[in-house]
Amino acid sequence: MPIQNSKSRVTLRDIARHVGVHPSTVSRVLNPGTRQMVTEEIAKKVTKAAHELGYRPNAFAQSLKTNRSCTIGVMVPDLTNAAFAPIIKGIDNVLEESGYSVIVANTDNVAERAKRNVDKFRERQVDGLVIATARRQDELVADCRAEGTPFVLAVRSTTDIGVSSVVSDEVIGVKMVMSHLVQLGHRDIACVAGPQFLSTGFERYQGYLQGLAQAGLEADPDLFAEGEAFTEEEGRRAASKILATRKKFTAIVASNDLMALGCYDELMAKGLKCPDDVSVVGFDDMPFASHFNPPLTTVHTPLLDVGAEAARILLEQIEEPYLPARALKLRPELIVRASTAPVVS
Amino acid sequence: MPIQNSKSRVTLRDIARHVGVHPSTVSRVLNPGTRQMVTEEIAKKVTKAAHELGYRPNAFAQSLKTNRSCTIGVMVPDLTNAAFAPIIKGIDNVLEESGYSVIVANTDNVAERAKRNVDKFRERQVDGLVIATARRQDELVADCRAEGTPFVLAVRSTTDIGVSSVVSDEVIGVKMVMSHLVQLGHRDIACVAGPQFLSTGFERYQGYLQGLAQAGLEADPDLFAEGEAFTEEEGRRAASKILATRKKFTAIVASNDLMALGCYDELMAKGLKCPDDVSVVGFDDMPFASHFNPPLTTVHTPLLDVGAEAARILLEQIEEPYLPARALKLRPELIVRASTAPVVS
Repeated sequence: MPIQNSKSRVTLRDIARHVGVHPSTVSRVLNPGTRQMVTEEIAKKVTKAAHELGYRPNAFAQSLKTNRSCTIGVMVPDLTNAAFAPIIKGIDNVLEESGYSVIVANTDNVAERAKRNVDKFRERQVDGLVIATARRQDELVADCRAEGTPFVLAVRSTTDIGVSSVVSDEVIGVKMVMSHLVQLGHRDIACVAGPQFLSTGFERYQGYLQGLAQAGLEADPDLFAEGEAFTEEEGRRAASKILATRKKFTAIVASNDLMALGCYDELMAKGLKCPDDVSVVGFDDMPFASHFNPPLTTVHTPLLDVGAEAARILLEQIEEPYLPARALKLRPELIVRASTAPVVS
Repeated sequence: MPIQNSKSRVTLRDIARHVGVHPSTVSRVLNPGTRQMVTEEIAKKVTKAAHELGYRPNAFAQSLKTNRSCTIGVMVPDLTNAAFAPIIKGIDNVLEESGYSVIVANTDNVAERAKRNVDKFRERQVDGLVIATARRQDELVADCRAEGTPFVLAVRSTTDIGVSSVVSDEVIGVKMVMSHLVQLGHRDIACVAGPQFLSTGFERYQGYLQGLAQAGLEADPDLFAEGEAFTEEEGRRAASKILATRKKFTAIVASNDLMALGCYDELMAKGLKCPDDVSVVGFDDMPFASHFNPPLTTVHTPLLDVGAEAARILLEQIEEPYLPARALKLRPELIVRASTAPVVS
């Protein structure tokens, strides 16, 4: 049942009859590209009649003509990760102004579900995609490139050159974390890393290694554990693995805030206090990170801006398909809260 | 630039040429409603060729024919309120299985923006709406009814009868909170209420009043303050107003978790401890409520289920427009954490 079922739709023919002109004249007036072909007087009459009769353009018929659907598909890996809501909001804010609608697809980090969503987006002929689900090597992204689909990667990038993306500067972010910890006297710093097949997990780990090197510290493989997903559970599992080695450490750099929460859980379960026994740092500064117990020291990524910039670049690409790809790295900011403290020697 | 621009689209004509039949035969085979008009053998050949050539149905042309867009519009008031992401996820889970896509619109609680979004949804001829932005008296909802638009209200209901909705049983939820507090010895219980023009704010306040009555306690107007929105800021403002009366109270019932966080902020700013000096209870059990400082006692609303049930009812309505409206109230659950404690006398 279409949304206007109970009232019959006003057609160009109805307007034409009302004004006393040919339907093709009405069509010319209502199409911005041909309006100037009709005299000002007639154009006004037609517009007035269209308004009074409650005419609404038929989006399907228009899309068939213009080959534009004015919809954008957005793929996110996990809607309940609080980091993604601000990104969608940022995208929606920009697109709404431009008359575009956003179709959201939640892939739950499942590759087949992502593929099914891209197929669905194609059937709907969306004008472009914002992809926040990319792996560093991503078949779907390669496929979109091959097909000439306008798209922008958000948050997660791939190893391809020539693909537009908007991400946070992960390496710089984690290097700021490392300087902060080193200044507090930490020398034995563990890393609870995110999946290495994702740019976020990979680059943040690179930042950790570079931060160690810069401080003249060596990386201890026992103090590294990789989670299979950016979740609280995987953060906890990784922290537990590091604790099981019984190696000394005084701080954990977690690859995102959810994983940092998992570290909180595991430390508490083992009777360790944060930050008294172990400092913990996250990444993202997701909503409410300041309300955690203890309030989480983290790296603030401008999530709203990531979404807004991705939408802007995508709109440019849709208008001008031959523009070169743009890779935007937004500068993150270290937010020091109560989960980090000086080492007590 | 439509999504398939760089490759030319496979048409019915291409398939017909490949198989050696007339295009109308191909059309009959690919339309489930007419497939039985063609012999099994030909149907198989056509389906195989369509698959091999990479044929994709043109959604616009199909929609023009079937008058179905297979999209659902979802209106949420605030994407960054963590309670709404699980609702959208619940909707998406159900709709994805049924081949529908979700268009999300964020209204930021602005009435004109909601109206603009409904207009946009109509232009796109969405098959139905899930509305999570309704006021108790809502012109847009009345308008959708008058137009015969299939829609379901989620989370927030209106005073109209005969409108389908899926909400949490707010009154029962807050009455459980009140019993819990009374059992802990609280007698002077303040209420930081949400906006009374929203069913959630109104019903939760009714639950507070009924809970007081049930315990034989009187409502003190000085211990009531209404926020203008369900936000941390408004929760803080309301708490500050109650504190300014200098009336004694030992507990605050906040109308949602964000407002409860605002109470935390204001209590801390005034040097008061939660729960030692004042117990605080929220509502929603939004993600991370267990990680707040202190972990928040709250009412768990099955948000994923609210979304999923709303989607199911909407699909039924789209299939059978003359089904009677269904108002579903899901049973909430009290989650006792560390923000409530016995009164120290």
